Amino acid sequence: MRILTGLQPSGKLHVGNFFGAMEPAVKLQEQGDAFYFIANYHAMTTVRNPDDLRAYTRELAVDFLACGLDPSRSVFFRQSDVPEVNELAWILSTVCPVSLLEKCHSYKDKTAKGFTPNHGLFAYPVLMAADILLYDANQVPVGKDQKQHLEVTRDLAGKINEAYGEDTLVVPEPIIRESVAVVPGLDGQKMSKSYGNTLPLFGEEKPSKKLIMKIKTDSTPVEEPKAIDDSLVLPLFRLFADDASYEEMLSQHESGGVGYGDFKKRLAEAYWDYFAPMRARRAELEADPGYIDQVLSQGAEKARSTASVTLDRVRKAVGIV
Amino acid sequence: MRILTGLQPSGKLHVGNFFGAMEPAVKLQEQGDAFYFIANYHAMTTVRNPDDLRAYTRELAVDFLACGLDPSRSVFFRQSDVPEVNELAWILSTVCPVSLLEKCHSYKDKTAKGFTPNHGLFAYPVLMAADILLYDANQVPVGKDQKQHLEVTRDLAGKINEAYGEDTLVVPEPIIRESVAVVPGLDGQKMSKSYGNTLPLFGEEKPSKKLIMKIKTDSTPVEEPKAIDDSLVLPLFRLFADDASYEEMLSQHESGGVGYGDFKKRLAEAYWDYFAPMRARRAELEADPGYIDQVLSQGAEKARSTASVTLDRVRKAVGIV
Repeated sequence: MRILTGLQPSGKLHVGNFFGAMEPAVKLQEQGDAFYFIANYHAMTTVRNPDDLRAYTRELAVDFLACGLDPSRSVFFRQSDVPEVNELAWILSTVCPVSLLEKCHSYKDKTAKGFTPNHGLFAYPVLMAADILLYDANQVPVGKDQKQHLEVTRDLAGKINEAYGEDTLVVPEPIIRESVAVVPGLDGQKMSKSYGNTLPLFGEEKPSKKLIMKIKTDSTPVEEPKAIDDSLVLPLFRLFADDASYEEMLSQHESGGVGYGDFKKRLAEAYWDYFAPMRARRAELEADPGYIDQVLSQGAEKARSTASVTLDRVRKAVGIV
Repeated sequence: MRILTGLQPSGKLHVGNFFGAMEPAVKLQEQGDAFYFIANYHAMTTVRNPDDLRAYTRELAVDFLACGLDPSRSVFFRQSDVPEVNELAWILSTVCPVSLLEKCHSYKDKTAKGFTPNHGLFAYPVLMAADILLYDANQVPVGKDQKQHLEVTRDLAGKINEAYGEDTLVVPEPIIRESVAVVPGLDGQKMSKSYGNTLPLFGEEKPSKKLIMKIKTDSTPVEEPKAIDDSLVLPLFRLFADDASYEEMLSQHESGGVGYGDFKKRLAEAYWDYFAPMRARRAELEADPGYIDQVLSQGAEKARSTASVTLDRVRKAVGIV
């Protein structure tokens, strides 16, 4: 069973990205033959600065490995190292009704958020379909926001198979993530770059902890019980602390006698400790840039050899060789 | 000066294609460094049968060479032999406003003609822009129907240069074909496959001549003068006959005494003789399929080496290497 997943390099990762995307992605390597890619072609639809794109791509590679992606058991590559994906995207375009793309929410959402309505955003679901179909992926984990795009992928694979023969493309199944962790931001809303409420995944110690110490709290005196439902600290602490520590903080909210400053200090410690092994791994990786290059180039080679089999099959089927 | 031109392999060529597209294309090799390609990716937007697409592609290659394209002075290749064009198309997509494509007539025209409104047709001008920009073409000959697409190409090159640096892409100039020969069909309308009024460029002798003998004429008796303005024979004869023969037929229309059957026989002869050298060349080429393969593979190699220089430059500029 081949599972495929990709992440866009569009900026420094935060804790919300970790629990919502990176951690579930890395777990896939235990479930099958996992393919991971850094979707830098996709990122081009919103990142216009070449130095940023290069830096984000590199950082995401390091982050993936620091978070536990094991390149010896999985295939890990940059999307742009297998440019063949663009050829498959064209072929899919020729069977893709324009109306199918017009129905996609993501384009409407992105343009509503102020992104320029460029053709890359419009054609995004076709390139995403090519990303998946090029590697004969059987399973693709999708969150709510990508469910519709996977339907487009299945639809296009079906149309190709109908037009050119049933075995031309593998029609992938979605793995619907039932409970995607919604990580609260520092202001209690969903943690998101666009809300400016994020905690960095791999930031500097002082500024990161400072962000936590600045979390807004009410004016309940130290000795009194603290509100649990409105707490911005508790749900974050739950992510990083062991059960005993969490229960302790919870009961101290109920009993009173401990101040917010103390809770926040413990949150800051727990946050820092939680990512300590990954941070250490990240430092090792950064000290050895040649290793990252080697991993990505080996990944690209493996990905290309899989891709070329699919593409040869498709090219023959459609009549361009 | 580099001139680029492409033709779609979408069926057997007729005499209208020859005078309207093939002949002007072949002449370009005398005007500069000419690049010719067989646009088989584009043809996929309308040709759904793989055997047809393969056959049309092959036949167009043979036709081009039979009509005088000299592969030793020009670069002649199949579009799909340089799949890098699809990568450039994606990059252009990320700077291409959707509104720019919505304004293009060709998509509206094709769908109005009953073609399925697929995304390939919609994105056609982006792939066409990539076709041109990948080879740093300075000049592109365009008929009326492609003028708008060349504007899109110039626009996209400008946007890339604005975003990523002035020297990223060469902005091509159009060579506007001032007087494109409108070849009349066998019924007097413009010769066009969709009107079913065509005379094949390289057909069998008997059926081709038979088509001419079936041209509709009025019931003017042999001895009387024949109408010149309404003649379906004269404008076709003018294409194939030398001046003296044409003048002779013209004066016989005016004087009377010669029947339509005789005029049509002369037209059939002149048509057959006109293409005789190309037909002979074509037979030679067909007898040597290895030569065609060799020409196309050498052309692909030259085209790819030019393309890779452009693409490396673009990749660096946008930040995907």
